[in-house]
Amino acid sequence: MGSIVWGFVTDFFTYETTKSVVVKSWSVGIINRIVQLLIIAYFVGWVFIYEKAYQVTDTGIESSVMTKVKGFGYHNNRSMDVADYVLPSQGTSVFCIMTKLIITENQFQGRCTEHDEKYSCDSDEDCHKHYGSILTNGVITGVCIQDFNSSGRCEIEGWCPAENDKVHVDPMLDVNNFTIFIKNSIRFPLFDVTRGNFPSTMTSEEIKRCTYHPELNPFCPIFRVGDVLNYTGQNITALATKGGEIGINIQWTCNLDRNIEYCVPEYFFTRLDAPFAKNAVSKGYNFRFAKYFMTENGTEFRTLHKAFAIRFDVMVTGKAGKFNTIPTLINLVAAFTSIGLGTVLCDYILLNFLKGADQYKAKKFEEVSDAQISASAAQSPGSQLSLKTGIKSSYDSGALSLSNSDQPL
Amino acid sequence: MGSIVWGFVTDFFTYETTKSVVVKSWSVGIINRIVQLLIIAYFVGWVFIYEKAYQVTDTGIESSVMTKVKGFGYHNNRSMDVADYVLPSQGTSVFCIMTKLIITENQFQGRCTEHDEKYSCDSDEDCHKHYGSILTNGVITGVCIQDFNSSGRCEIEGWCPAENDKVHVDPMLDVNNFTIFIKNSIRFPLFDVTRGNFPSTMTSEEIKRCTYHPELNPFCPIFRVGDVLNYTGQNITALATKGGEIGINIQWTCNLDRNIEYCVPEYFFTRLDAPFAKNAVSKGYNFRFAKYFMTENGTEFRTLHKAFAIRFDVMVTGKAGKFNTIPTLINLVAAFTSIGLGTVLCDYILLNFLKGADQYKAKKFEEVSDAQISASAAQSPGSQLSLKTGIKSSYDSGALSLSNSDQPL
Amino acid sequence: MGSIVWGFVTDFFTYETTKSVVVKSWSVGIINRIVQLLIIAYFVGWVFIYEKAYQVTDTGIESSVMTKVKGFGYHNNRSMDVADYVLPSQGTSVFCIMTKLIITENQFQGRCTEHDEKYSCDSDEDCHKHYGSILTNGVITGVCIQDFNSSGRCEIEGWCPAENDKVHVDPMLDVNNFTIFIKNSIRFPLFDVTRGNFPSTMTSEEIKRCTYHPELNPFCPIFRVGDVLNYTGQNITALATKGGEIGINIQWTCNLDRNIEYCVPEYFFTRLDAPFAKNAVSKGYNFRFAKYFMTENGTEFRTLHKAFAIRFDVMVTGKAGKFNTIPTLINLVAAFTSIGLGTVLCDYILLNFLKGADQYKAKKFEEVSDAQISASAAQSPGSQLSLKTGIKSSYDSGALSLSNSDQPL
Repeated sequence: MGSIVWGFVTDFFTYETTKSVVVKSWSVGIINRIVQLLIIAYFVGWVFIYEKAYQVTDTGIESSVMTKVKGFGYHNNRSMDVADYVLPSQGTSVFCIMTKLIITENQFQGRCTEHDEKYSCDSDEDCHKHYGSILTNGVITGVCIQDFNSSGRCEIEGWCPAENDKVHVDPMLDVNNFTIFIKNSIRFPLFDVTRGNFPSTMTSEEIKRCTYHPELNPFCPIFRVGDVLNYTGQNITALATKGGEIGINIQWTCNLDRNIEYCVPEYFFTRLDAPFAKNAVSKGYNFRFAKYFMTENGTEFRTLHKAFAIRFDVMVTGKAGKFNTIPTLINLVAAFTSIGLGTVLCDYILLNFLKGADQYKAKKFEEVSDAQISASAAQSPGSQLSLKTGIKSSYDSGALSLSNSDQPL
Repeated sequence: MGSIVWGFVTDFFTYETTKSVVVKSWSVGIINRIVQLLIIAYFVGWVFIYEKAYQVTDTGIESSVMTKVKGFGYHNNRSMDVADYVLPSQGTSVFCIMTKLIITENQFQGRCTEHDEKYSCDSDEDCHKHYGSILTNGVITGVCIQDFNSSGRCEIEGWCPAENDKVHVDPMLDVNNFTIFIKNSIRFPLFDVTRGNFPSTMTSEEIKRCTYHPELNPFCPIFRVGDVLNYTGQNITALATKGGEIGINIQWTCNLDRNIEYCVPEYFFTRLDAPFAKNAVSKGYNFRFAKYFMTENGTEFRTLHKAFAIRFDVMVTGKAGKFNTIPTLINLVAAFTSIGLGTVLCDYILLNFLKGADQYKAKKFEEVSDAQISASAAQSPGSQLSLKTGIKSSYDSGALSLSNSDQPL
Repeated sequence: MGSIVWGFVTDFFTYETTKSVVVKSWSVGIINRIVQLLIIAYFVGWVFIYEKAYQVTDTGIESSVMTKVKGFGYHNNRSMDVADYVLPSQGTSVFCIMTKLIITENQFQGRCTEHDEKYSCDSDEDCHKHYGSILTNGVITGVCIQDFNSSGRCEIEGWCPAENDKVHVDPMLDVNNFTIFIKNSIRFPLFDVTRGNFPSTMTSEEIKRCTYHPELNPFCPIFRVGDVLNYTGQNITALATKGGEIGINIQWTCNLDRNIEYCVPEYFFTRLDAPFAKNAVSKGYNFRFAKYFMTENGTEFRTLHKAFAIRFDVMVTGKAGKFNTIPTLINLVAAFTSIGLGTVLCDYILLNFLKGADQYKAKKFEEVSDAQISASAAQSPGSQLSLKTGIKSSYDSGALSLSNSDQPL
């Protein structure tokens, strides 16, 4: 009983390794080493150095953006400041600078005529086709009112007088000189590293005076609107007239194995609504909002604004990497395993194209067929080849006995 | 000296390959090929065709969403247009359409009584328990005021008169016919590909007239609110009365190896606050805001609105893939390596279940034990098996000499 | 012809397996098993149990956040409620609670003097250097006005009177007792699982009375502002005076193989603008907004607010995993393959450090050189070693014939 257990234990603590054929051939040897070199070069150069496979990376950053616009412009003969032209006012990451306002003052609830020629009419019937239209300035009542010299206009119910957005208004080109201050703080939760988009050594004076420039001043958090539009290749007049969307992309790529001071942001600028530039319709960016007032006797009225605006989206993306033993180990193992893959190619060359390929085959391959096995199994169980003695005593005796036996293989 | 270097060089440029046993057995041969076929099928079908492992993918899209609501509704006997019922007004990706407003007009700073029965009182003591409550309409002063017929109410300090949000107000069901125009442009930074959510060939007339329909009109960017609610299975009256949150998910799945024109969005609609549908509390969506006015003598007063609204969240997700040599190579190598894995299964079958398994074992395994090694090491150093001659001259001589020697193995 | 095809078929259905050397040595055997044990332990413990490699994971959650602030505060001798101090009012995931307001009332368009000492002047020339400044309260006209006792001030054009933001205003410390109700619903699109951040079994009364506490009440969706600031280690007075940004991170980590009821959120609180805490400039968070009014005769005027606010960013991140056969299979295969990697280490030990290493080498390696191949190729084609007979008949005959031949190797 004890010997059986002992047998299991000795069987368990054996070590099995592949039997190899060493080919002393210059051609295959050199090819083999070159293939191995290429694989090592790939792993060292691409996997480890370029892709930094020895690091764990964190892309799920927490980011917070605060923006502040400064500058004065003239529009409709009024001086506009930040509280007038920025919406929303809280300094969020997405904000609009209104550059053109079509203002319709003193609108009261009531009935009046539409402005547009589309709604011209001679009789009430002409207006019935507009019932339920959502392109008007109010609900179509179906009545035609003759208050124009030549032709009438359909009546609407809603806020009156109706807006006329066909009037020409000059855009506020002063927007060119406005500045945007961006305060961005990020945190990589995996490494618990927090960074701000400008160095803590910057003094109050430096920040007030500087303007961002990709080469000269890459860490200044103050962006001139004109510069930003330039970087995206946009025309200020067109953009201020029609409105548009500009993306300010803050990219953090941090290698935390180096000094944390090298973990700095890069800024990229794009026009976000570029895909619609070639569209016949829906160019630009505009929206409507109203300011509400009350008369002395408590009637509400409003001033409607159709605002054309440049919308800025500050988008933050980030990636940080730091050395970690686990990915390093995994990739080292992968590298070692891959080195063995060169064998596939070399075997193919060795066994097919080299002089004496068949001898190599004879060396590499040992054949055993069903017929053989049956034949040897048919021999006397006491022979050297019998299962018990041949196998249990020593595995390699099989190879020897086969080579000694003279039976045709 | 030169010969030693030469020896190193020749040793270096050798090629080592595994010695293989070729088993000419139908059963194992067929199993082997079937397993290999399955592995190849898996790689070709799943990894390459289904998962497109030959591509690099980009999921970090830059997206910009612009929305515009159109339509007119009647609420509290007033006609409402976009400037009245949409908040915020700038056409952002998250916006609310207010469907029910409880309006408390002419609130001034001062002291007045609470409305709710909860705050009824007979004496000041009854109100003291409400000190510091945040569920009231103002700060509890601790005074009980008897201005109701039967019972008094606690006094509050704040904006007066206090809001009574128990009144019944009919929701604005016209919201059903409102339309939402969504302009979404995306960019895959890795491939520098930008796309818009409707084709540039669409004319102004087409866009103005069309309405989105999943089959008939999948590229129309105009969504009828009633349709969107239908797709999510929501009841318009319940939603307009209580408020709720609707998600409009724009999904881009682009295979950039095909024509870019096939890179189009898909729209999905969900009710976002669905997990709370079965909750006893906090159903729906509402918030309060105020419009501020000033009297002639400069006193500020306000109109408080408790707004029940349908909030729409336009969410954009995207994934693009394009052929790239690096992932193709890596996966090809992985595929070739994996084909070899069938051996594990076949070896198990071969060495355990097949007739003549022990002969196969004898063929596959060659045994060498500590005892053997010690014995041969004890022989004369001048023999064929001595380390210097036996190994340096030729590795395989060991196998030969062992097979020639008659010692028991 | 048929026999050739048959030959191909029989050749195709052969099975090739590596020939192995079994080393019966305690030292290498034990090392081998320990290395295999470590690899298995790594796969079971780290890959399968810790990293749950048998699951597919979904991190692209759809999330919707609704917030509601409650509480009353006194500021500038006025009672403030939610409609007064929260911006934006819609209850979005990013919102501000204004804690300090510097109010400049009755601003009309016109010309007036700047406040700040920086803009003091004796003559118009002193003001010219400020031309185009964006740090003023309006456009510098270049005129010096002597309306101060000792020195003049430069004139500006814009909203007058100019804001004086140097005045001392006490912050609204009542913010400490305000509460934030957060309703967060998420959806894992891959598994179509939706969850809310508080249990549906919570009654209306429970929600109204509870306050979040990490241990005692981790599922209550009501957060006291004072507690949140405590968790981030911030001083309420400093924050209310200067403003700041607080992040409320909701983390969902769900193992969907367990009961869905265990899929609950965790809350984390951080100060988002922490990286700027040590900066000399730009501490805190403030912005300007205006309320617009109209006089009887139709002139617009405004009240400018410089608001210092605490901004709250509710950020939601999530990850869900569920058992899936494909990753399970892939990782099982990877595990089995990796077990074989222990061989590299053991081979190194066996062939270099063990007693009798050279005998092991002799057993493991069989050598074949160019010279050998040429020699055998030069023999008569009819011999046992000839290509046709030696290879086609049986691969392993090569090994046998070589061992039988007495030529020096």
